[in-house]
Amino acid sequence: MRPSGRAPDEMRAITIETGYTKHAEGSCLIGFGDTKVLCTASVEERLPPWLRGKGQGWVTGEYSMLPRATHTRGSREAARGKQSGRTQEIQRLIGRSLRAVVDMEKLGERQITLDCDVIQADGGTRTASISGAWIALRLAVNGLMKQGLIKNDPITGKIAAISCGIFQGTPVLDLDYEEDSNADADANFVLIEGGQIAEVQATAEGATYDEEGLLRLLRLANMGCDQIFTAQDEASH
Amino acid sequence: MRPSGRAPDEMRAITIETGYTKHAEGSCLIGFGDTKVLCTASVEERLPPWLRGKGQGWVTGEYSMLPRATHTRGSREAARGKQSGRTQEIQRLIGRSLRAVVDMEKLGERQITLDCDVIQADGGTRTASISGAWIALRLAVNGLMKQGLIKNDPITGKIAAISCGIFQGTPVLDLDYEEDSNADADANFVLIEGGQIAEVQATAEGATYDEEGLLRLLRLANMGCDQIFTAQDEASH
Amino acid sequence: MRPSGRAPDEMRAITIETGYTKHAEGSCLIGFGDTKVLCTASVEERLPPWLRGKGQGWVTGEYSMLPRATHTRGSREAARGKQSGRTQEIQRLIGRSLRAVVDMEKLGERQITLDCDVIQADGGTRTASISGAWIALRLAVNGLMKQGLIKNDPITGKIAAISCGIFQGTPVLDLDYEEDSNADADANFVLIEGGQIAEVQATAEGATYDEEGLLRLLRLANMGCDQIFTAQDEASH
Amino acid sequence: MRPSGRAPDEMRAITIETGYTKHAEGSCLIGFGDTKVLCTASVEERLPPWLRGKGQGWVTGEYSMLPRATHTRGSREAARGKQSGRTQEIQRLIGRSLRAVVDMEKLGERQITLDCDVIQADGGTRTASISGAWIALRLAVNGLMKQGLIKNDPITGKIAAISCGIFQGTPVLDLDYEEDSNADADANFVLIEGGQIAEVQATAEGATYDEEGLLRLLRLANMGCDQIFTAQDEASH
Amino acid sequence: MRPSGRAPDEMRAITIETGYTKHAEGSCLIGFGDTKVLCTASVEERLPPWLRGKGQGWVTGEYSMLPRATHTRGSREAARGKQSGRTQEIQRLIGRSLRAVVDMEKLGERQITLDCDVIQADGGTRTASISGAWIALRLAVNGLMKQGLIKNDPITGKIAAISCGIFQGTPVLDLDYEEDSNADADANFVLIEGGQIAEVQATAEGATYDEEGLLRLLRLANMGCDQIFTAQDEASH
Amino acid sequence: MRPSGRAPDEMRAITIETGYTKHAEGSCLIGFGDTKVLCTASVEERLPPWLRGKGQGWVTGEYSMLPRATHTRGSREAARGKQSGRTQEIQRLIGRSLRAVVDMEKLGERQITLDCDVIQADGGTRTASISGAWIALRLAVNGLMKQGLIKNDPITGKIAAISCGIFQGTPVLDLDYEEDSNADADANFVLIEGGQIAEVQATAEGATYDEEGLLRLLRLANMGCDQIFTAQDEASH
Repeated sequence: MRPSGRAPDEMRAITIETGYTKHAEGSCLIGFGDTKVLCTASVEERLPPWLRGKGQGWVTGEYSMLPRATHTRGSREAARGKQSGRTQEIQRLIGRSLRAVVDMEKLGERQITLDCDVIQADGGTRTASISGAWIALRLAVNGLMKQGLIKNDPITGKIAAISCGIFQGTPVLDLDYEEDSNADADANFVLIEGGQIAEVQATAEGATYDEEGLLRLLRLANMGCDQIFTAQDEASH
Repeated sequence: MRPSGRAPDEMRAITIETGYTKHAEGSCLIGFGDTKVLCTASVEERLPPWLRGKGQGWVTGEYSMLPRATHTRGSREAARGKQSGRTQEIQRLIGRSLRAVVDMEKLGERQITLDCDVIQADGGTRTASISGAWIALRLAVNGLMKQGLIKNDPITGKIAAISCGIFQGTPVLDLDYEEDSNADADANFVLIEGGQIAEVQATAEGATYDEEGLLRLLRLANMGCDQIFTAQDEASH
Repeated sequence: MRPSGRAPDEMRAITIETGYTKHAEGSCLIGFGDTKVLCTASVEERLPPWLRGKGQGWVTGEYSMLPRATHTRGSREAARGKQSGRTQEIQRLIGRSLRAVVDMEKLGERQITLDCDVIQADGGTRTASISGAWIALRLAVNGLMKQGLIKNDPITGKIAAISCGIFQGTPVLDLDYEEDSNADADANFVLIEGGQIAEVQATAEGATYDEEGLLRLLRLANMGCDQIFTAQDEASH
Repeated sequence: MRPSGRAPDEMRAITIETGYTKHAEGSCLIGFGDTKVLCTASVEERLPPWLRGKGQGWVTGEYSMLPRATHTRGSREAARGKQSGRTQEIQRLIGRSLRAVVDMEKLGERQITLDCDVIQADGGTRTASISGAWIALRLAVNGLMKQGLIKNDPITGKIAAISCGIFQGTPVLDLDYEEDSNADADANFVLIEGGQIAEVQATAEGATYDEEGLLRLLRLANMGCDQIFTAQDEASH
Repeated sequence: MRPSGRAPDEMRAITIETGYTKHAEGSCLIGFGDTKVLCTASVEERLPPWLRGKGQGWVTGEYSMLPRATHTRGSREAARGKQSGRTQEIQRLIGRSLRAVVDMEKLGERQITLDCDVIQADGGTRTASISGAWIALRLAVNGLMKQGLIKNDPITGKIAAISCGIFQGTPVLDLDYEEDSNADADANFVLIEGGQIAEVQATAEGATYDEEGLLRLLRLANMGCDQIFTAQDEASH
Repeated sequence: MRPSGRAPDEMRAITIETGYTKHAEGSCLIGFGDTKVLCTASVEERLPPWLRGKGQGWVTGEYSMLPRATHTRGSREAARGKQSGRTQEIQRLIGRSLRAVVDMEKLGERQITLDCDVIQADGGTRTASISGAWIALRLAVNGLMKQGLIKNDPITGKIAAISCGIFQGTPVLDLDYEEDSNADADANFVLIEGGQIAEVQATAEGATYDEEGLLRLLRLANMGCDQIFTAQDEASH
């Protein structure tokens, strides 16, 4: 039995509020139950030095948690003077995932930064970030195309992410904080609409799992991402 | 004529949504027009080393802007590895202002941190932070009193803040970004309900002002803060 | 009764030794009683990147306390690896104040940096810094004009700063350390010769003050700055 | 055809030189072809503050590349003043992997740090680090047991890691630098002797893969780790 | 011929003003010609953690140049966020030199920090720092003895430092900036009254020197330090 | 009697393994007894900004100890976020020493970085670094000449370094860790083949020494360096 009473393959409610901030070229507040992440896409007509003059663009991600997004207050990374290893790991994942569905030449010589700021955390913040960042990116690119700055759509598909895990011996979908803290194994899947895998990050904590276990988690993730793809579709039209 | 069409002594609409995040002991999303700040109060039964064992508590503030709260994306302070002078100046102001209305002995040996994170910026983020932080603090202290952890209310009064300035020769109340960028002089007032001044930060940019000008700005601020005190009252009951 | 035996509107002795260091284009050691600040003006024919090619110059300030300027030794900011919020706040104030009396186009495409290093501290180091920095700036600009590098004087007036406060219920002028540590309210005024206000930073600590109180402090500040303007005049001829 | 001429399921030569440094409680220089990593295990009878007094120990990892381990010289992280996101990600992985096979209570209140310093890099440095770190750990624990400081062996099994990828359409085992730079997908597997998975980190770069692809990579990884387990066994007796 | 017209074995004028700052337990402004260093000794009844409870004290040094101590303005180390290698090298030398003439057990469980801040630089700032720091230390220890906090004098002798070099083929004493910039070889000697050597740091720049050259420089240094010992004697009585 | 049983003028065994890493343009693992340092020379056709376009090259050094090179594990400088004063002092010495035997104009507009990473420490790591760096430099320059990138050999001579000290009253050559920790005085000499001195760094710890003592140490150093020159010669042919 899951603490939330959900069935093993049941997602939390997905909520998406697009246009959450007025300055960003694309934005949404995405929620998976009590996890809330503000995702913004910022377009800059300026590339990092190592990419200039190569006829292509770049997509990158940044991630942060507000200090009191969590049960107990965490110290502010800006005050500590450095980003944690966890933060850096997550923002590298966000950028890599989004780049998997963007044609950099079609994007042209510009950079889009996807900022994912966790307003409230209840498990699954990195996967919510990726799923929401895609919407912000989609909206920003729509804007660029409407203005005629981009001719051909550089976005090659939808991408979404979800966590699965083995909780008290049962594979379950979309872990919340309570499950995540007590899961035997925890895996984040980044999937592309149509059945392709962009990224798997599976970690055994305490227990381990075998090939069969990994497959069962992957299949749950496929079910979950299908629901996210539908929600992304509705939100970005 | 103000760009927004407001009268010189007209505030922007104040919006307050309390309980915005579920983990913080007190929280609100406060808006002054398009300026939106998430204020949370976090109670910790742990004091900074220099205050331990003195029979009193502490109140402190932290401030940050989300990278895309502004017209163009600003770099993330956590990524740059340090907080700007502006950020530090503002968070010192927030803490000092709130401490002006708290009796530290009645608070007891605990610390309350007021995190003010700007979700969207359109001028006046530091004054919105102070005004919203008071609500988050009030809600957190209400909770401590309801739980019987504090006997006597340590909050000695209401505090609010507003910016005024001289725009095209006319003193105006509650500057938005467009006015702020073009004002001849800019002053932030932190006022305590009942007519006392907690803090004045008045800066001439380009033009300067004389004693008479300072007084006219102070009187506008008094009018503005009266409206904020009413809104605080409604929000924290 | 003030600890120093001074009358409420009595300044400490002002001492100014110009040409204190041989390398700087302008310099002075300014003293307000036991507070001693070395102010140097350094002219560089090089602008920060964001100002290049705009046909104007820039004036900026830096501030530091020697570790043993104070009663007990403070740790060296260079060793700690960052400047405190207080230091940054003060150096921003110094730069802003001096810029209020400089015409950047007449200055031409060069930068003048005003370094204010506190040799000995006894209250009022930031206001002494501003008052002394003006002298260093004046001397440096005199030199540039003598060399024919600047045609028209870019300095539009004199600027000075002084702290006032409410000490045991009485408004007093030019607080020393003992008064500053025990004042109910503390205000720094940056004034321009002729009665204009460039900056007010007034903070209530413990007690607060009302409109009347603010005005009384401002009037004391006007008296104090008049004496500083006279001293600046004598020192820079 | 692989650039090295190896068969798709062919590992590079594994070389292990134990006792490579005289000070560490356990050490080896492990090589996978031209990739050489010095792994040392340092035992300290001192725990991080958050673990003290809980009757258990801790295992952690650190990772670094010598500046000229690579084709072109990289700047030294100590000189830059921070560790890259990549370094932090890898050292978190090393620590997590080794902890998966250690019983922290049997280890007792001590910390073992596994330092993995890459002397020469030719692909697969993180997986070589994990595989070598296990040997260093094994040797250090053997020493603690010989000295009677630990009664019951805290190491619950062998752990090894290997990278696999899809190179020009073919799944291949143990990628070298040339393959790694050009692979369509790249996956690192951390496996426990006996068929359990501790960690999967699979990333599609450019191309993506499906469930079938992931399984084929996992099976290659199982073959590779079996060879590493044998080598670990020989080296640590 | 030396640029200054001095004879090869002629020192610059030594000036010493003791009690330069009122807060420090010992202080002097020492000058060697145009090189001016403010040296303060701060006594703290608190030791670094690694020395506590060992029945002995500690002496340490810190060094900094004011940004405009030099011909062209140098950036402030506190603003850059780290001390340069040169600064660290010099402050390690200052501490080591002074410790050579202090009996740490007689000093008792306290730390004396010698801050050497260069007000104006014209060559030889590190040697002036050491020579002046001894005076500040002597004065601080005199104070501790007068207060009865120390019974037996912990200072075992006088220490002084001077630079020598080979300038246009001739060994010369007490290099000023112009000579230092053009010297073929440059050596700093830290000598103890009575003919003992505490430290030699000799560097060939461009040219090199042989045993004979080193000896000639050492003999010049002995002559110079004798004059400094006399000046220290006069200053600290 | 020396702890190692060596005669006062007896060096430890010198071992040199050239070509230790395949990527560096020149490399060796140099050993003085149990002290082992990996020295690599990296050639870059890119100069630091302040040297560009001056028709000359540059040689610089970097130094680091692996965390467990020593008896007890030291924390990693990259993790601490800064290099220690000791590290910076040593790498400045390495660069300065090597530059003493390179004609920068003949080197041409390129930079050679000498990385000295201590694999195992047993005293004398900085002198081993200099002696080994010369070999790495020699090999890298040989390569540049073979490729025709440099016409005339820019290396003007051999340079080597060794430590000497006074141990229990006797001057001894090539101190190991046990001697170094207990020596009364410690001196590092950097000598150029043919009898010239490039650098002396002599420090008295506890005891001091006089002119005669310094000379005896210098003569021992000359004997030691002669052996190193021979070993360098054999290694770089």
